[in-house]
Amino acid sequence: MPHPLGLITLLTDFGDRDYFVGSMKGVILTINPQTTIVDLSHHIVPHAVEEAAYVLKCCYASFPEGTIHVVVVDPGVGSLRRPLLVKTDRYFFLAPDNGILSYILDEENQVEAREITNRQFRLESPGTTFDGRDLFAPAAAWLTKSQPVSAFGPVVHDVRTFPISKPRWESGALLGEIVYIDRFGNLISNITAAQLKELEAVTKRPTPLIRLAGHLIGGLVGSYSEGSPEEPCALINSNGYVEEFLKQADVAQQLKIGRGERLTFS
Amino acid sequence: MPHPLGLITLLTDFGDRDYFVGSMKGVILTINPQTTIVDLSHHIVPHAVEEAAYVLKCCYASFPEGTIHVVVVDPGVGSLRRPLLVKTDRYFFLAPDNGILSYILDEENQVEAREITNRQFRLESPGTTFDGRDLFAPAAAWLTKSQPVSAFGPVVHDVRTFPISKPRWESGALLGEIVYIDRFGNLISNITAAQLKELEAVTKRPTPLIRLAGHLIGGLVGSYSEGSPEEPCALINSNGYVEEFLKQADVAQQLKIGRGERLTFS
Amino acid sequence: MPHPLGLITLLTDFGDRDYFVGSMKGVILTINPQTTIVDLSHHIVPHAVEEAAYVLKCCYASFPEGTIHVVVVDPGVGSLRRPLLVKTDRYFFLAPDNGILSYILDEENQVEAREITNRQFRLESPGTTFDGRDLFAPAAAWLTKSQPVSAFGPVVHDVRTFPISKPRWESGALLGEIVYIDRFGNLISNITAAQLKELEAVTKRPTPLIRLAGHLIGGLVGSYSEGSPEEPCALINSNGYVEEFLKQADVAQQLKIGRGERLTFS
Repeated sequence: MPHPLGLITLLTDFGDRDYFVGSMKGVILTINPQTTIVDLSHHIVPHAVEEAAYVLKCCYASFPEGTIHVVVVDPGVGSLRRPLLVKTDRYFFLAPDNGILSYILDEENQVEAREITNRQFRLESPGTTFDGRDLFAPAAAWLTKSQPVSAFGPVVHDVRTFPISKPRWESGALLGEIVYIDRFGNLISNITAAQLKELEAVTKRPTPLIRLAGHLIGGLVGSYSEGSPEEPCALINSNGYVEEFLKQADVAQQLKIGRGERLTFS
Repeated sequence: MPHPLGLITLLTDFGDRDYFVGSMKGVILTINPQTTIVDLSHHIVPHAVEEAAYVLKCCYASFPEGTIHVVVVDPGVGSLRRPLLVKTDRYFFLAPDNGILSYILDEENQVEAREITNRQFRLESPGTTFDGRDLFAPAAAWLTKSQPVSAFGPVVHDVRTFPISKPRWESGALLGEIVYIDRFGNLISNITAAQLKELEAVTKRPTPLIRLAGHLIGGLVGSYSEGSPEEPCALINSNGYVEEFLKQADVAQQLKIGRGERLTFS
Repeated sequence: MPHPLGLITLLTDFGDRDYFVGSMKGVILTINPQTTIVDLSHHIVPHAVEEAAYVLKCCYASFPEGTIHVVVVDPGVGSLRRPLLVKTDRYFFLAPDNGILSYILDEENQVEAREITNRQFRLESPGTTFDGRDLFAPAAAWLTKSQPVSAFGPVVHDVRTFPISKPRWESGALLGEIVYIDRFGNLISNITAAQLKELEAVTKRPTPLIRLAGHLIGGLVGSYSEGSPEEPCALINSNGYVEEFLKQADVAQQLKIGRGERLTFS
C-alpha cells in the first residue's frame, strides 16, 4: 500500500508561457508547503491524450513509491467526464477519465479508482475551465496530508481506457507500430526486446529484416554511435522497445513518418 | 503583514535555452539553501511588460501569503529605472519600475514600495545587463532571511503603472477588449461575470449578442465541451472573465485576432 | 574540498516534451528524496556540446560550493566514450568525456577526474540510449549521500577538451569571436573588459573602432538602454565579456550573424 511522500509530479498540455502551471504549484504549496513538485512535461500537444499517456508510461515508475502523479490533458474539462484518483500498489494518479491512464491500468497492480467528488478538496471557482488548478492540484495536495483515498469520492469500476496497440504475428513476421516520436526525431515502436528474441527463434536469423513505411531499415545495432547519419538503423532503447534512428539526425523528419506508421520485422 | 516563507516565484522573459534562470536560482540558493523556487513562466515575449503583468495578475494570489514574487521583464535594465520591492498585506514583489506591477497595485491592499538601493543585497558585477541575477535574485533571497523591507532602500511614492483597460457602457452595450491570448489560442477579455449579470438586467435577454472584430460569437456556454470546433463561443473562465474559444481549436489563429481587439456584448 | 549539499543541477539537450528530464529527477529523488534539483537548461541544440559547455561556464559558479552539476549532451551515448565525475575545489561535475567540461578545466582548481565505472551506482537497463537516467542521475544522487569520489571508478588523467577560442592581438588590433548568441539575439564575444582596457592603453583612444562581419558597430555604451534599435552597439555584459546588441531587437537575426563570426576592436 502506498504512502504519500509529499512528492507530486505534473504532466499537462499547458505549455510554459501562461500562468497555468504556476497556479497549480501555488495551490499545492498553499495546502502543503513541504511538497516537492516535479514537472514531467507541460508540452504535450494540446488535447493529445494518447501522447500524454505514453509519456507517463515511460517515466512514472522512475519515481519513488508513494509519488502522486497528476496528469491534466483534459479536452473535456468542465463536462461530465469524471475526475479520477487511482491508487495502485505503488503510486497515486490524478487525471480526467479520458483514457490517459490506459498504460497504468495495463501495468500496475491492485488498482483502486475513485471519482473525486468531495467538494472539501476542491477550490471554489467562477468557471469550469481550469480543473488543473481548482480540482486536481488541491486534491493532490490533500492526498499528501494523509487523507484516505476513500475520502475523495465513490469507487469507480469502469475507468475509461483506449486499446493499447500491441505487435502481432503474421506469417512468421512481427508487425508493430510507431507509438511515439521523441524530441530527437527517434521513432519508438511497440515491439519489445523479448519479442525480437522470439522472432530470432522463429527465423533462425541473427539479423532481422526491418521494414518501415516502404523503407528497409539498416539493421539492429547496439547504440546510437553504431548508426549512420544517412541510413536509418534500429536498436533496443533503454525502456526495452525497438527504436529507429539516424545518427545525430531526425529520422522522423527525413522519412516523413508519424505516429501510427507500421513496422515489420521478419 | 506578510512573513517571508522562503517561497520565491520567478516570472521573466529569459526563455529556457540560456543560463539566465539557472544563474538566478544559484544566487538565491547560495544565500538561502532552504528556499523553494517556483517558475511562473520564463516565456513572456521579450520585453512585453503588459503581458507579464497579466500573467502575474492571474496567478500571484494562488500562492501562500508571504510568497515573494520576482518579476524580471526589464527592457530598461542598466538604465535609471528603479528596481522596486513592493510589499502588500499578503505578498512581496520585486520588479523593475516599468508598470509591470500595475494590476498588483490595483488589486492589493496596504502597499508599501521601496527602491532597492542597498548595495549589501546586491552582487558585484562587471556589467549592467543582468539585474535578474545581480540585484533581484539576491534581494529576494535576503528577504527570506528576515531582512526588514525598510533595509532595502528609500520609500517610493510614485510607482509607475499603466492604465488598466476596463470595459465601458455605450448605449446599453458593454464594450470590452481582448487583453490576453493563451497557449490554446483562447481569447481572454476584460469583461467580468458580474458585468454580464448587469447587462442581463439592462437588456432583459438571457442570451447576449456578442460581437468580436466583425464576427458574431455563437453565445455563452458553460464549458469548453459545450462549444463547437467551427463556431466561436464564449464562456466565463475560471478567473471570472469572459473568454472566447473554439472547441479544441485555436480561435485566435482562425479569426486572426490579437491583443487589443474590441468585443461588444449587447 | 567540496561537501555535497544535496543540490544537483541538470543541463541537457533533452528538451521539454518527452519524459527524459522527469525520469532523471525520479531516479535522483528515489535515491535521495531530500535533494534539491535545479534545471539549468534542457534546450541546448541537440548534440551541441560546445553550446552546452558555454552555458555551463556562464552559470556554474553562481551556485553554492558543493553543488553537483550534471551535464548530459551526449551524442556518443552507448559508445565507449567515458562517463566522468570531475571534482574541483568547489564543485562536482558529471558529464560524458566529450569536451563539454573544457571551460571548467580551464577555470577551476585542484581538479580530480574519475571514470564512472562502479555498477553499484548505475541502474540496470535493457538498452544503451539513456545514460542520463541510468548512469548520470544515480551517480549524482549517490554523491549527495557522501559516497567518496574514489568509489566511482579509476582516475582519469586525459579528460577530453576542445581548444577554447581566445582573442589575439594583430597589428595593434584585438581580434575576437562570437562564441554565443542568447535568446534575445545578443552576440556574446570572447573579448573581456580587461582586454578592452589594454586596447585603450595601446590605441590611446577612449572609443574603439569595432568591426563585426563587415559592419561597423556603433560604439561601446554602458547599458542596453543607451543603445539604439537600428544601430548595433557593444557593451560589457554582466559576465565581463563584450556583447553586441540592438536595443530591444535581435541583432543576430538582423545582421544574419552566427557563432564563430569574427570581431575586431582597434
